[in-house]
Parts: sequence; C-alpha cells; structure tokens
Amino acid sequence: MQKNMCQIGVDIGGTAIKSVLVSSGQVLACKSIPTDIEAGPDKIIKDIAGLIKELKELSEGRVITGVGIGCPGAINSKTGMVDHAYNLKWDFVPLAAKLRELVGYPIRLSNDANAAAFGEARYGAGKNYKNSVFVTIGTGIGSGIIIDGKLYEGNQSKGAEIGHIVIRSGGEPCTCGRRGCFEAYSSATSLIRDTVRAMKKNPDSKLWQVAKSVDQVNGKTVFDAVMLNDKTAKSVFNHYIKMLGEGLVNIANSLRPEAIILGGGVCAQGEVILKPLRKFVAKYSFGDGPMVDILTASLKNDAGAIGAAALVEWEEQFPV
Amino acid sequence: MQKNMCQIGVDIGGTAIKSVLVSSGQVLACKSIPTDIEAGPDKIIKDIAGLIKELKELSEGRVITGVGIGCPGAINSKTGMVDHAYNLKWDFVPLAAKLRELVGYPIRLSNDANAAAFGEARYGAGKNYKNSVFVTIGTGIGSGIIIDGKLYEGNQSKGAEIGHIVIRSGGEPCTCGRRGCFEAYSSATSLIRDTVRAMKKNPDSKLWQVAKSVDQVNGKTVFDAVMLNDKTAKSVFNHYIKMLGEGLVNIANSLRPEAIILGGGVCAQGEVILKPLRKFVAKYSFGDGPMVDILTASLKNDAGAIGAAALVEWEEQFPV
Repeated sequence: MQKNMCQIGVDIGGTAIKSVLVSSGQVLACKSIPTDIEAGPDKIIKDIAGLIKELKELSEGRVITGVGIGCPGAINSKTGMVDHAYNLKWDFVPLAAKLRELVGYPIRLSNDANAAAFGEARYGAGKNYKNSVFVTIGTGIGSGIIIDGKLYEGNQSKGAEIGHIVIRSGGEPCTCGRRGCFEAYSSATSLIRDTVRAMKKNPDSKLWQVAKSVDQVNGKTVFDAVMLNDKTAKSVFNHYIKMLGEGLVNIANSLRPEAIILGGGVCAQGEVILKPLRKFVAKYSFGDGPMVDILTASLKNDAGAIGAAALVEWEEQFPV
Repeated sequence: MQKNMCQIGVDIGGTAIKSVLVSSGQVLACKSIPTDIEAGPDKIIKDIAGLIKELKELSEGRVITGVGIGCPGAINSKTGMVDHAYNLKWDFVPLAAKLRELVGYPIRLSNDANAAAFGEARYGAGKNYKNSVFVTIGTGIGSGIIIDGKLYEGNQSKGAEIGHIVIRSGGEPCTCGRRGCFEAYSSATSLIRDTVRAMKKNPDSKLWQVAKSVDQVNGKTVFDAVMLNDKTAKSVFNHYIKMLGEGLVNIANSLRPEAIILGGGVCAQGEVILKPLRKFVAKYSFGDGPMVDILTASLKNDAGAIGAAALVEWEEQFPV
C-alpha cells in the first residue's frame, strides 16, 4: 500500500449510515447521515454516493482505491448483491453495481458483522492474531470468522451465522425459526427478556429500583442491579454468562481460533463479563489447550466502516 | 506433481496401522499391521518405519516425496508432536522427529479425522467442493474443516472438535466434561445408549428380536428394528436424526460450507439417514440458502491414509 492511497468505508446501519476515509487503518475523515429506510434503496444509494463525494473532497490528493460497504442482512459479496436486509426492507438490491454507476470506484460489499470482524482483525483488538472470531452482541448476535488473516465468508458469503448455532435444542424460540440458538440466549434482546421475566417473578428485586417498569429494562439493567448486590439480578447474570460461555466454548472447540473478540453494547461491561467468561471457557474447552484469548473490540462503532475500507485495501478482487 | 512422484500415507488406528503408497490419490500398494499399543510408542514407530520400508520396495522407481501420518488425539502438526492420544496411551511423543530419524523422509503429522477430511476433500466425496466439513460418526465424533481447498487446523492444530459443540446445554454427559455435546447425542456410542434405554423401557419392542440382550446392541440395531416397523425403534431413530441434524445445521449456519461429508459406520445406512437429515437441514438452516450438500464419504476406511499422503502431496512445509 503506497502512502498516498486511501479507501472509503461505509457502514449501513438501521438508523445511520457512517462513512470514513481511511489510510492504513487511520481514519482521516468521517461523515454520517440518518438511514432513510422509508425512501427505499435508490435514495439510500444516492445518499451513500453523496457521502463518498464529500469524503473525496477531503482526501487531499490521495488516490482512493475503492469503496467498501458493510451492510446488514444476507449479502452476496461475489455478486455485490444485497439478497435480503430485513432491517432495511431490501430484497435483491444490486447495491455494488448501482453505487459503482454513481461513483465510479470499485465496490467491495460485505455483511456488516463480517466487515467489523475484518476491521478488528486488521486494525483493532485482533491485529496480533492470524485466526480470530468476532462476535457482536446486540439486538441479535452477529459474527465474522478470520482465517489466516483473511475474511472467511462461506458459500455465497452467507457464512458465520454463529448466532444461529443451537446451544439448547428445544429451548427458547429464535427469530430464525429454530429453538435454542446462541442468539436466543446471548443477545441483548434475550438478556432483556430474561431480566423482565425475573422481575415479574421477584417483585422485591432491586431490578425494580434500576428500571421502574419492565418497559424501561435495557441491556444494562441487570448489571446495575448486580452492583446493588441483588440476588435475582445475580441469578440472571450468572445464567447469561453461562449461556454466552457455552457459545464461546463451542467456537473455541470447533474453530480453535487464537482469539474471540466481543463487540456490541453489552461489552461496555468489560471485565465484569470478561472475567467470568474466561473462567467458564477455560473450564469447559476441549482438551488441555491452547486457550483462546477473549477480548473486547477496540474500534467500537467504527469497526464496520474501517473494516469495509480494509477489505478494499487488502483484497484485490471486487464484484464490480 | 510429476508422474514419477508418490507419497506414503499412514493411518494409526486403535487396532491397526494402515499404510498406503499413493500417487495423485491412486493407491498403488497397501500394507497393514496390528497396533501394538502395550509395547509403547517406540515399538509402534519402528513398526511404521517397517511398513514404509516395505512400501518403498513396491514404489517401482518412483520418488517418494514424504510420509503423511494421521494419528488420533491431540496432535500438534507444527511441531510434529502427538501431545496426547488417549487410545494409544501416548503423551508428548515426538512422532515426526523419531520417524524421520528412522526413514529419512519429510514427515507431515495430522489428526486422523483431519487427514481423512483432507483425503475426502481431495480425492473423495468432497473433490468438487472448495469448502467442506467432514464429520465421522464412530465411538466419538471426529471432524475436519476444509477451507479454500486447504485443511484448517486451528491454533496448535487443535481445531475442528465439532463433536464438542454443545447442542443441548445441561444435557447428556460427554467424555469431555461438558454436558450436551453433539458427540453425546450423535456418536454410535450415544445411539447405542439410547437404543438400550429404549429397550429397557419397552420390553415388547422388536429391538429385543434384533439384539437378544442389551450387551448385543450395536450401532445397527435400531436401523434393523426400524425395518421391522417397530415403533420404539422409530422413536429412537427420529430422535437420533433430529440431534444429528441439529449438529449439521449448526455447521451449515456457522461455516456455510458447500458440503458436509459424513463418515463412519452409521453412514453405511446411506439414504436411510441422508434423506431425513437433508430434510431437517433444509428446514432449519438460516435464511434462504444456499443449501449445503450432505453426502457420505467415498474413500471409506482408506480416507485417513490417503488423506495423510495427500497432505504431503499438496503442502510444501512439514515440521520435520
């Protein structure tokens, strides 16, 4: 990579589109706009082209080698097509082709969690590891697999839906139609569900001090109540760590990565969740090693956009 | 690969050591001896050297480029060390170094299921796929992951213990210390356990016609009783397919390989298990595709030895 070269990374979220101008992982400029979902894909693609134009003007003579896009949903990175993106209400949108027509740069499209995984692997918490797995804990569980420093996307780039590994067959219903998925126990949504259940069963719990009503419960409620030494909250917390731990041991045993990197809001708890998780994973991993390192993401909310740009920097072929 | 080149592959099993002389996946000669476990590693390594010498004499002037070894247990392919092999009662045996001293050829050591996975991927049922996962159903569940035509071994080559993905947290105890592993439901051992349990609960079941006593139950008993239209056997069979299916959907969702290749004794049932498994996987896989192909292994008992030789053929670096 020559020093006068840079890339643009775009992360399409349900509420905002974030774009960055990046050179060797360093963010030179950043522009965001709200995601105008109701206006449909063509308007959003036009908005993205607008962001790219703005960033181009800030590139100070550097050569922009391409644009990387991280998009939620079922993405085919080989065709540059968004097959389905439920959050965006998109089906079969040829995003890469349409955007290329507007901006002229080569486009590398990827699933947003995959882009974030690549960002963390190249420039974030995973930069010292060849093989890592990224798990982002939000409304659902997103994930990305890095093998030998490269993003592994699987057949039609539909791989790494680690959130949809069943960890308790017949258990909690999952949005995917199965029962007992990792996501159905370890997402922030699931943690909120379990917190609300515990509150309803335990009217004396201090969870009611933290959240005045069940409508006000969020992914932080249980952690705040644990700090108040609440027994019910501790029980919800312990169950959450156990089920999240089961998923992480599954990753450790099946892929034996050097590191698992955790992203998403819940990870703001840092050592509060990392310490018991490391203990659980050490206890239940197969055989006697090697142990997997468990870390929190370091690029935070920029991981997706930086990772999308990094895909352009590190790969040579793009769909369009 | 030049035509006058060949490799030797060795598969160390609990009862026999199988060795083959292979050229581009074609077996030119084959030699086996019993595994003399009680005599200890040095004697076994000497036995392997003897097999290699015999095969060398049958090589008809071809150049033997190296020896590949598939060995059960926790294998470090980078150091050529058998860290632990419970079946063989070995701990920290520098197999590759010791064998190289005796035979002079470069040695490529691998876990036996990984070697078999590579054999099937290069020359067997997986030869038309770039990304495949091999699952062998025996006493336990062995597995190997092929990514982009290469064997993925994970950190210290301890990867791909897919049998130790928990699919029912808190469920059946597993030899690894966890509860509810894929292996604890889908191995032949688990199928036998469930068959015996069902027999004890159902004295009128035709399972008692197939196996006269619980001591005579094997991995085939339940399939034979299903052919007799036995209700109890059908229930055991359906539960087995469901749990095996849960594991395969987990593989499909997390790695999205193009193919899953099933090996081991149970797979002799062919379409009897493949048909309901394909239906289950199609029903529960995440999103709307692409579907993973589910096939049975084609190299059968030779997969490990052929695969070990293939690792020598296709890789350029060996530990010793």
